This record gives sequence, C-alpha cells and structure tokens, in this order.
Amino acid sequence: MRVKVSRKAHFNAAHRLYNKSWSDEQNSEVFGKCAFPNYHGHNYELIVSVTGEIDPDTGYVMDMKVLKDIIREEVEEPFDHKNLNVDVEEFKTMNPTAENIVVVIWKKIRKKIPENMELDVVLYETPRNFVSYGGE
Amino acid sequence: MRVKVSRKAHFNAAHRLYNKSWSDEQNSEVFGKCAFPNYHGHNYELIVSVTGEIDPDTGYVMDMKVLKDIIREEVEEPFDHKNLNVDVEEFKTMNPTAENIVVVIWKKIRKKIPENMELDVVLYETPRNFVSYGGE
Amino acid sequence: MRVKVSRKAHFNAAHRLYNKSWSDEQNSEVFGKCAFPNYHGHNYELIVSVTGEIDPDTGYVMDMKVLKDIIREEVEEPFDHKNLNVDVEEFKTMNPTAENIVVVIWKKIRKKIPENMELDVVLYETPRNFVSYGGE
Amino acid sequence: MRVKVSRKAHFNAAHRLYNKSWSDEQNSEVFGKCAFPNYHGHNYELIVSVTGEIDPDTGYVMDMKVLKDIIREEVEEPFDHKNLNVDVEEFKTMNPTAENIVVVIWKKIRKKIPENMELDVVLYETPRNFVSYGGE
Amino acid sequence: MRVKVSRKAHFNAAHRLYNKSWSDEQNSEVFGKCAFPNYHGHNYELIVSVTGEIDPDTGYVMDMKVLKDIIREEVEEPFDHKNLNVDVEEFKTMNPTAENIVVVIWKKIRKKIPENMELDVVLYETPRNFVSYGGE
Amino acid sequence: MRVKVSRKAHFNAAHRLYNKSWSDEQNSEVFGKCAFPNYHGHNYELIVSVTGEIDPDTGYVMDMKVLKDIIREEVEEPFDHKNLNVDVEEFKTMNPTAENIVVVIWKKIRKKIPENMELDVVLYETPRNFVSYGGE
Repeated sequence: MRVKVSRKAHFNAAHRLYNKSWSDEQNSEVFGKCAFPNYHGHNYELIVSVTGEIDPDTGYVMDMKVLKDIIREEVEEPFDHKNLNVDVEEFKTMNPTAENIVVVIWKKIRKKIPENMELDVVLYETPRNFVSYGGE
Repeated sequence: MRVKVSRKAHFNAAHRLYNKSWSDEQNSEVFGKCAFPNYHGHNYELIVSVTGEIDPDTGYVMDMKVLKDIIREEVEEPFDHKNLNVDVEEFKTMNPTAENIVVVIWKKIRKKIPENMELDVVLYETPRNFVSYGGE
Repeated sequence: MRVKVSRKAHFNAAHRLYNKSWSDEQNSEVFGKCAFPNYHGHNYELIVSVTGEIDPDTGYVMDMKVLKDIIREEVEEPFDHKNLNVDVEEFKTMNPTAENIVVVIWKKIRKKIPENMELDVVLYETPRNFVSYGGE
Repeated sequence: MRVKVSRKAHFNAAHRLYNKSWSDEQNSEVFGKCAFPNYHGHNYELIVSVTGEIDPDTGYVMDMKVLKDIIREEVEEPFDHKNLNVDVEEFKTMNPTAENIVVVIWKKIRKKIPENMELDVVLYETPRNFVSYGGE
Repeated sequence: MRVKVSRKAHFNAAHRLYNKSWSDEQNSEVFGKCAFPNYHGHNYELIVSVTGEIDPDTGYVMDMKVLKDIIREEVEEPFDHKNLNVDVEEFKTMNPTAENIVVVIWKKIRKKIPENMELDVVLYETPRNFVSYGGE
Repeated sequence: MRVKVSRKAHFNAAHRLYNKSWSDEQNSEVFGKCAFPNYHGHNYELIVSVTGEIDPDTGYVMDMKVLKDIIREEVEEPFDHKNLNVDVEEFKTMNPTAENIVVVIWKKIRKKIPENMELDVVLYETPRNFVSYGGE
C-alpha cells in the first residue's frame, strides 16, 4: 500500500526574471514587469510529497518531523529572506522562474529521500500561479 | 524535465440541471433543487494546468500571460456573468453539470495549446465540489 | 465578558442587478455585465456573528446548533438554489446587490436573536468582494 | 471521457500515536508529543474523488448526493466526535496515523463505489500535513 | 496612528464539553456529540492582534517575533497536543467551550502585552465555527 | 443603514527592513533576517473597505468597479513588481514595515473616497502576519 504524505512549507524571497544574454529591451518584452531591475518578491508556498509503503511498526511512510527538517535545511535556510538572483548559487546563472526553482528544490530534496520513495514538489509563486515537478 | 504550470481563473454564472427529454417530475427527482426552474448560480473557480519541457532561454514552460489570455478568450468572456443554459451554445443541448462544463472548457483550451504539451483542467463548482479532466 | 461567536454558512443563487425605473441602457451603463438579462450567479458565503455574555452553566454565548438552525430557516431555505430577483419576495422590488442582500439577511436573523445580543453579518458575493452589516 | 469528481467532507476526532508493543520511552522517542497519554485531536478534512465516464442522460459521473451519503455513513458517523484509538474498531490494534486512517477510509468507501470507477482519498490531518491514497 | 498587528498560530488538542454538576443525560441533551465520553479534538487556529502606536524608530507596533514567543509560551506549549479537560488547569473546573478557551487565552496573553496596547483574540475551533474576545 | 463593502487586491514587491540612522549590527539585531542586504519579498494581499449609506437608486454603497480602479491607480501601479525601498518615494526615508505600508496605502486611498465614508485597510504581508489601519 503506497501512500503519499505531503507537508507544506514556505519562504519569502526577492527575485527578477532576466536572461543575461539578452538586451534589456528583449528582457522587458518577454518578462514584462517581472524584469524590473530592482527586484520584486513573493511568499513562496511549497508542498513536498513523498510516496512510499507504510512502515507497519510506526504507521508512517516517513516521519514528517524528518521531512520538515530536510525542507528547512535544503530550502528554507538557503532561500528564505534572500534574493534568489544574488544570494543563491543556482540562480546566478539560471533564470529564477517558478519552473526552474521547483526543479532546483526537487533535486536538493531528492538527495535526502530514500531511493524507493517518489518525490513530488509543488511551488506556489502566488496564490494564483503554481508549478509542479515529479522528476520525469 | 517536464514541469506542470497552473493558473487560477474564475467566472460567475447561472445554470440549472435539466434533461429536456425527461418530465419535470423526473428532473426534480434526479437533480433535486438543482433543477429549480428559475436558475441558481455559482462562482466557478478554474485551475488550468499545462505540462511541458522548460524552454532553456526563458525558463518558462509557457508564458503565463499567454495562458491567462487564452483562458480569458475561451472561458471568461463566453461564460462570465452568463446563464450557461441560455447564453452558451454548447449547453443549449447538453446539461451544464460540472462534469460537462469541465470537458467543454478542456476542449476549447486544448485547441490553443501546443500539441506536445498536456492539458488538465480542474473546475470548482463550489468550495466543496469540484471536477477534473485531462483528456483521457 | 462579552464574546462574539461566529458561524459560516452558504447558499448558491442566481441574480442580476437592475433598476426597474431605468432604461436598459442606463442599467447597462451603471451595472455593466451584472445587468445581463439572463442572470448570472454566485456561491454566497455567509458569516453570522452573535455577541453576548457567556452563560456560566453551558460556557456558551449561544448554542451554535440553534444558530445553525436559524440560518437554515431564515437564509438557506428561502435563498439556496433560487433566483433572487424572481423567487425571493424582498428582491422583487429591491435590487439584489450584496449590500441589500446583507441588510435583508440581518433583519431576518435579528428577529430570532435575543435582544441583549448584538448581530453582525458578513456576506461574500465572491472570494474577492464582500459586505458587512451590524444594524447601525 | 473519464472525469474525476471530488467532494469535501470533515470530521473532528481525538487520537494519539502509540505502538502497544513498545515501551513508553520508545513511543515518546518516535512519536514525540503525538504520543502524549491523554490524547490530542484534529479537524480532519477529507477529499473523496471518484473517476469514471460521464452518464450521457444525467451529465453526472456519480450523483454527488449519493457520494455525500456514502461518506456520511462510512466516515462521518463512525469517526466524527470520536476517539479514534478507543471508539473505532480498526484503530484498537493499528496506530491511527494519517497514513493508516486514509487507507481505512479508502477501503470502507471502495466497497460502495461501482467497480469500473477509481477512488482516491486525500486526508488533511492539519492544514499543513496531509496524505493521499488511491488503492495501489 | 494606531495600527493593529495580527499573528496567526495554532494548536491541536482534545476536549469534550461537560458540566460536572449535571447528569450524563442532561449533558448529552445540551452538548450532543460534543459530550461523547472519550473526547474528540480540533486543530485550533488562533489570531492574536495587538493595537498600538507605531514606534518611529522601528516602524513596528510590536516586534512580531516577540508576539510569536508570547503565543508559544502562553498558548502553544501548555495547550498543543494536550487534552484540555485533563491536562490544562483552567479547564479542570470550567467547560472548555470555544468561548471559555478564548477568554483564558486572552487573559494569559494580556499579562505580557504593554498596558497601552489593546489585545484581541480570535479562536477558530473549526473552519466554520469561531469566537472573538477583546477584553470587554 | 451603514454597510461596509470590501474588495481584495494584491501586489508583489521586494523590501528589506532597515533604519538608516543605525549601524548594520543594530539593524541586524532588531530586524533579524528581514534586514538582509539584498532584499526579500512578499505577495502582499490587501483588503480595502469603505463604509457608508446604501444609495437607494443603485443599491450600492460605492461602485466596486470604481473602488477597484482607485486601488489599481493608488496601490497596484506604484507598488506591484517594485522594490519598496528603492522604487517608492515614501519608503526612501521610512522603513517599509507592514505597519508603515498600511498607513501609506490608507492615506493614498483616503484622498479618493468621499468624506462621509469611512475607510479601513488590512494588509497581509504573509498569510500569517497582517496589519489593519482605520485612520484613528
């Protein structure tokens, strides 16, 4: 019996969308106000889901306190109250769109989750826009 | 890396549930108060999701502004502040249940989404009842 | 010690905004798409709050089951799955704006609440628009 | 055309996490404050989804009133305002983790759903922790 | 310029409603399933609001980190994952209705807030039932 | 009959908390990670409420489309996708705490609302922290 367990988390960060190999005009045309030079920001909300067998001794797929700690170390500490473009290594060379952020988060958490479990991450950039990645 | 990007939208519409080939008694028996003759209505909330590869230049699967415009043209303009049974061509001959509405919306948006991307639509009729369709 | 107790409820109804003493053009100009002739509708969400002293025997200001029944009789039964303009006596001669609806609801519930308690009603027409009335 | 229809429900219950074959120390170490002896509790929120073909006569996959009644009989009546460890047969011998509860609920509802339809259940233990089970 | 600053918090607890000076029959008649003997429980959600002048040096009415710590000490630590009737001194002799709980919480927090500031507490017992107290 | 009408809006912005007359150490001590030099950001959610008499001709206290336009001009256009500290005149010399932002927003909207109506503004910095100002 494979059950999916999900945990919500959140971080607040600044970013802007910008392709360094393009002119300012091209960036403005493609990214609109998301390219404004002085950054804007979001309350990113995160749902991290792990799918696996229920351990018959604990009744847990995975201890949520362990998952909570992994999210704190891999996502909240490096991203919270930071400027994604300036402070986070991955986004110095990659545009911090929601799509790219969710893939980075998935890869960082994936390393800490047992191999026989599946991992899915949903990232809300706003309450109206969100992205999902499952490793495919 | 296939990522799903999702966008919320909404429209407010009137409708009633009614099968024209049945008697009023049969409609009342099957659809209960949803068959009341003078219509009732809902704040329909919509989640439209598109799954595809991340474009390495933009970091986008699909520009959300483009998706937002497609939703406005295909769903909000024809459905918002309308009576689905009376004003919307598709529901003159088909009962506007949430199930039928979500399939109609999916087909209308599907025509505007690149073929190599998948489309999923979730439609909330109320905060407690919702339906999902992915084209299968 | 005066405590406010609040209960959520909801009803789904059709309506249109229309002043019968005006021309169609004037209605369209003032009410926009809310004046469309075939009605639209909403999931109205309601918060009914009663403020009073805590009864030392029960620890209740008012039994919420009693308040729930009052809301069902006074609001849900006459309004749910109805067309406010056509089916509800009060709105045959009064425009069913959120403002007018909340006052009508307040007056209907007020008659059933003990006089030494205050009554406040909040009515959400959509998740983004709402109105409040407290009898002043 | 297979559509998924979803219905929300809820129940309020007490529980504690505890493995009877372990010492109190071991239970405390694994389950932390969830093992406190006098129980704590949750507002469990439930999303029950049924996937099937749309009936061309009704426009329904399944009448939501029927699904609502199944949820009431199978989940709300036996679980609501109960102590899961003490009052519910299944959890007298099985730890009432969210994972185990969602599987029990899925099995109870599965017996009442037509065989050609799929069933998925999501159970929120808190707004921040939830689990999902689809029978795999 | 008096501004109100609000902070959300939460705790999960078991309770039952019961007046010790009444018979079981009378308790059952008044409190219904809330009087079930083995307890049930809730995810209590809390909004604590403090109103005061903005400090011109910080731009704060009150440092939210300080308020968060007060809520943790006064509410979360004594109430979270507890049985209110059994584990919490105040409710050994007072029925733990939402009304009585919100007054107890208000009094505990009030002692830690500067006298020239006002305090308001809202307590959600469920997403549909909540109570508010401001010290009047 | 005075009714309060409320409209939700939102903007996404970067900011940091910083008192220019203090040392970096003092800023870090008081504002913690909110003082990080490269900015972070939020999805600010706004509820703007206007209280007044219902116009008997329209049934409106105030046309919500007019209120929506005022919010767009006074708040969304100058603040959305901006860096509050760098791009917004008021916050070049005043710390952009939620308290100071809500007062600035209130003053900007107040000028556009008829004098016989009251104005209240609630500003959510995160789903867990919010502030309210009514002009007192």
